Amino acid sequence: MDADALTKAFVEHYYTTFDNDGAGLVNLYQQDSSMLSFEGQKIQGAKNIATKLTSLPFNQCVYSITTVDCQPSSAPNGMLVLVSGNVQLAGQQHALKFSQMFHLLPTPQGSCYVSNDIFRLNYG
Amino acid sequence: MDADALTKAFVEHYYTTFDNDGAGLVNLYQQDSSMLSFEGQKIQGAKNIATKLTSLPFNQCVYSITTVDCQPSSAPNGMLVLVSGNVQLAGQQHALKFSQMFHLLPTPQGSCYVSNDIFRLNYG
Repeated sequence: MDADALTKAFVEHYYTTFDNDGAGLVNLYQQDSSMLSFEGQKIQGAKNIATKLTSLPFNQCVYSITTVDCQPSSAPNGMLVLVSGNVQLAGQQHALKFSQMFHLLPTPQGSCYVSNDIFRLNYG
Repeated sequence: MDADALTKAFVEHYYTTFDNDGAGLVNLYQQDSSMLSFEGQKIQGAKNIATKLTSLPFNQCVYSITTVDCQPSSAPNGMLVLVSGNVQLAGQQHALKFSQMFHLLPTPQGSCYVSNDIFRLNYG
């Protein structure tokens, strides 16, 4: 698989985990150095990030991905990803647009984890 | 200035340059290794990127920024930035939503340049 295909596979895995398996999120971030900015709130560390994400109403939602772009970062085997799409919240009539960027870094096991994550709903 | 303030200053400088000074864009990207993904099209190298960006109808437009988020990347003094906002094209009634991510790296002169740039309009 090339970088584009690997990135798309990771992104699908990410949102499936997000939608269905809050506890699995810790494994996506892994490191104490991993960072999340969620609607402007900054959180650091895999455990803190998973705690935050599982506390959101977003864990009862369905993500629909419109675009996935990736580029190699300056880090060895690092990958930068920009996702845009819609998120349908439970009980809401209209889906909301969102954008989210990831910096993925490799693990010794040949997989990758989320080193940086910035999420924003696209209002206004 | 802290990282958030520096990033916001850079972003304002970026869109002002974009709106008014196409030639100045080469200085924002600087390196042959710099990458742009524009609506899915991948372009590498400061000169090629500036050529692409100045060929767009977007150089007769006005950007309005809604959100700017930043995080340090794993690169020394590197910064990851996610911008969301609206872009008003000349002769169009409605502004379009966009999102754009940057990976900024430091220059020896104490400034920074755009190592990675991914731009997407938020349709659909």
